[in-house]
Amino acid sequence: MSDLSKSERHVLAVLVDNEAGVLARVIGLFSGRGYNIESLTVAEVDAAEHMSRITVVTKATPAVVEQILAQLDRLVPVHKVVDLSVDDVPSVNREMALIKVASTGDKRVEALRLSEAFRARVIDTTHSSFVFEVTGTPDKIEAFINLMRPLGLVDVSRTGVVAIARGAEGM
Amino acid sequence: MSDLSKSERHVLAVLVDNEAGVLARVIGLFSGRGYNIESLTVAEVDAAEHMSRITVVTKATPAVVEQILAQLDRLVPVHKVVDLSVDDVPSVNREMALIKVASTGDKRVEALRLSEAFRARVIDTTHSSFVFEVTGTPDKIEAFINLMRPLGLVDVSRTGVVAIARGAEGM
Repeated sequence: MSDLSKSERHVLAVLVDNEAGVLARVIGLFSGRGYNIESLTVAEVDAAEHMSRITVVTKATPAVVEQILAQLDRLVPVHKVVDLSVDDVPSVNREMALIKVASTGDKRVEALRLSEAFRARVIDTTHSSFVFEVTGTPDKIEAFINLMRPLGLVDVSRTGVVAIARGAEGM
Repeated sequence: MSDLSKSERHVLAVLVDNEAGVLARVIGLFSGRGYNIESLTVAEVDAAEHMSRITVVTKATPAVVEQILAQLDRLVPVHKVVDLSVDDVPSVNREMALIKVASTGDKRVEALRLSEAFRARVIDTTHSSFVFEVTGTPDKIEAFINLMRPLGLVDVSRTGVVAIARGAEGM
């Protein structure tokens, strides 16, 4: 395997035909060669054009990322692949998480107070629980989850990162 | 293949060990048997416990969903699998999208006005473009994207659905 000491996080956006088996092939490419997947999302971009956009976050050396990009580009259902984490493509990286916290009294009050500081939205509530929706960079999501741990954290569901290039151009 | 006329959207939450190849096995199970994947997200839940949560949205008949659940449950790295779209498990379903719109003049003003109505956040802006972050049900995201089409839609990056059970209990 490659020298992981030079590994950096890369956010890859992959535009693919929305047909059966494409996701399995993309992921097979990663798992077959031992490439790491930190997070992955896939969803339709345009129903009329039958296109999906996959966002993969991987930790890899520059040489390995180059291999991954070349191999993805060679898959027939892949229309376009872009590394959105290199310096010449400034991008915004965001994630969403649903976070359930069950507590009462001071802990409940504190959870709500912190959620306001993080601009989280309350999307479900009972007398003893909240479900918060929070968006931001992965670091911000991580920080919010860690603050909720001592306040009755029950469950976390994160989307993984999605990214888009800054400015008016595509991808 | 099964009778698709009785197919419904199912949102499955799958708690797995965060180790190499698990995602490939889960997706292989779907693609190998021709089960449809509408969206998929995977991200770490707890770094200390090395657990990830996969959310899969699939359209399937009740019989096929039962098969999928049983087969997922049989995979060794799968700790828990729940169908969050059945009546006895009320849940919240949310998605996030980053949406780039490039336009000027009236179209730009209208895009910004609509973004406020949808409680979208502007996370990048130039003189001729916006990147909006919008969260909500898939239907709401879809509606926002459709409204942006005539206003200079450039790119869309959606996370796919994440879901969490309502109330204080886990999953």
